Amino acid sequence: MTPTSPDADRDRDRDHLAEAVELARGGMEAREGGPFGAVIVRTDDDVVVGRGWNRVTSTSDPTAHAEVVAIRRAARVLRTFELEGTTIYASGEPCPMCWAACRWARIDRIVHASRREAAGEIGFDDQFLYDDLARSADEQSVPVEHLPLQAGADVYQRWATDPSFTRY
Amino acid sequence: MTPTSPDADRDRDRDHLAEAVELARGGMEAREGGPFGAVIVRTDDDVVVGRGWNRVTSTSDPTAHAEVVAIRRAARVLRTFELEGTTIYASGEPCPMCWAACRWARIDRIVHASRREAAGEIGFDDQFLYDDLARSADEQSVPVEHLPLQAGADVYQRWATDPSFTRY
Repeated sequence: MTPTSPDADRDRDRDHLAEAVELARGGMEAREGGPFGAVIVRTDDDVVVGRGWNRVTSTSDPTAHAEVVAIRRAARVLRTFELEGTTIYASGEPCPMCWAACRWARIDRIVHASRREAAGEIGFDDQFLYDDLARSADEQSVPVEHLPLQAGADVYQRWATDPSFTRY
Repeated sequence: MTPTSPDADRDRDRDHLAEAVELARGGMEAREGGPFGAVIVRTDDDVVVGRGWNRVTSTSDPTAHAEVVAIRRAARVLRTFELEGTTIYASGEPCPMCWAACRWARIDRIVHASRREAAGEIGFDDQFLYDDLARSADEQSVPVEHLPLQAGADVYQRWATDPSFTRY
């Protein structure tokens, strides 16, 4: 489906976002995790290539946010770790983990239905992440420590000097 | 094993970090992904509860960074989505995705052997993430768009008003 007008594009965005919200509702009602859903859509043909909802509590996986689940599924289906040419529709504004996952996945657009503040009001407060991201590594509430190791440098060197490793 | 002195603590840190680097080397040589490894250790008894290495290219999963893999494994083994009382040892400085995953997992300490700049020199440049994190949502190279939807607010409201959902 080729976009025909700005209005058609906006309708399409709303439809996909509505599905993301429905996935949020379904996952929540099924007790799989928090009320968050996400849909990944290929831009050129409007095909949904990945769906996800929050599964943190049901799978004991703190990384199983809706966006990460959708990305992993889309990448598996398309057999690629790069999802250029797609848009992710998330019911809630992606947290820094999910945002960075979207960017590593090379997703082209990120659209969400509810801002972080709305999630904060129902108990999902990402603010501790944003606060620490604005601080230097040693001033964060969980300091990031650097302990240099020669073996670490050696492994990087090995990677750099052998072109047979798959770059990404 | 209770720490006996600052020197003993530092030796312990080096040992765990050396294992993270060995996992990096093993995963790289096995062609599973980039040269990155991570180990999660329970602080009170010094037991390794999770190991991971980068598997992005071999599993077509852009989120399969070493730290995320280790967190998912540790959480599965311990049957919890919260890893308080643990330290993560990563061969490379965690990228923003992995850093946020560590924080969501409630890991207490983050230690790494090689700074982001060293990874950048061998082709793993996280700088595009740090650059965008310093910008507002609409000024990032992939803008984060907000399209409000009443259904989204309704799902949050449903979560907020039903105490039977598992909080986290």
